[in-house]
Amino acid sequence: MHPLRSVIEAADLAINREDFDALMDFYADDATLVVMPGKHATGKAELRKAFVAIAEHFNHTLVVTQGELVVVEGGDTALVLADTRVKATLKSGEAYFAERKATYVFKKEPAGRWLCVVDNSYGTDLLQPSAVR
Amino acid sequence: MHPLRSVIEAADLAINREDFDALMDFYADDATLVVMPGKHATGKAELRKAFVAIAEHFNHTLVVTQGELVVVEGGDTALVLADTRVKATLKSGEAYFAERKATYVFKKEPAGRWLCVVDNSYGTDLLQPSAVR
Repeated sequence: MHPLRSVIEAADLAINREDFDALMDFYADDATLVVMPGKHATGKAELRKAFVAIAEHFNHTLVVTQGELVVVEGGDTALVLADTRVKATLKSGEAYFAERKATYVFKKEPAGRWLCVVDNSYGTDLLQPSAVR
Repeated sequence: MHPLRSVIEAADLAINREDFDALMDFYADDATLVVMPGKHATGKAELRKAFVAIAEHFNHTLVVTQGELVVVEGGDTALVLADTRVKATLKSGEAYFAERKATYVFKKEPAGRWLCVVDNSYGTDLLQPSAVR
């Protein structure tokens, strides 16, 4: 199992628990999150704000998990492709479920720790934003 | 237009002309190419060998071009999502055409030049290799 699986699973746990301090430790200082197609957040202050808004949007019921995961390493960088599952109960009471083909980029620090530099859960659907759920 | 578009178009031209010396200049020394699902080449010697084999496989008629392109930068790293078109005439005389949702990772050198560190034209289809053409 690639070490990035447990890193990503720990980050998901932090999202699901709304532990944003712990969550920020998984990101590089200048990381970018694709909040939704066309809307990016860059740097920990913006990322944190975006995650707080996402938690609120999903009425504090968000559960993110990963299915299959493929890692392609090149030098100190890794491209991660993942079956990301997003589950929640919306404020309307409606159940929300989306399975996304996500793309994450991680960088290995000299000390060996992986940090996320690009977090794009929409994957290549950004090429056809109408396909995004 | 993001500067990476012209970088990628120049790399495509080098592929189409089979100018593998010029092509290698677009890659970091430790870059990884996904040759096909499950088969990776890492480092310029392996990459060059893979591109020579690909050119031969496509009977020296390979034409790679890009359609839409989305770039997400995080720090000195960029995730590129691209509609990559692969066209060729196979040895059998049959026409080959594939449109792939590709994922490329580039790193900006201190001098400002972008180098490819992960070249995965299969994108998130690596999560379901049976979908790959």
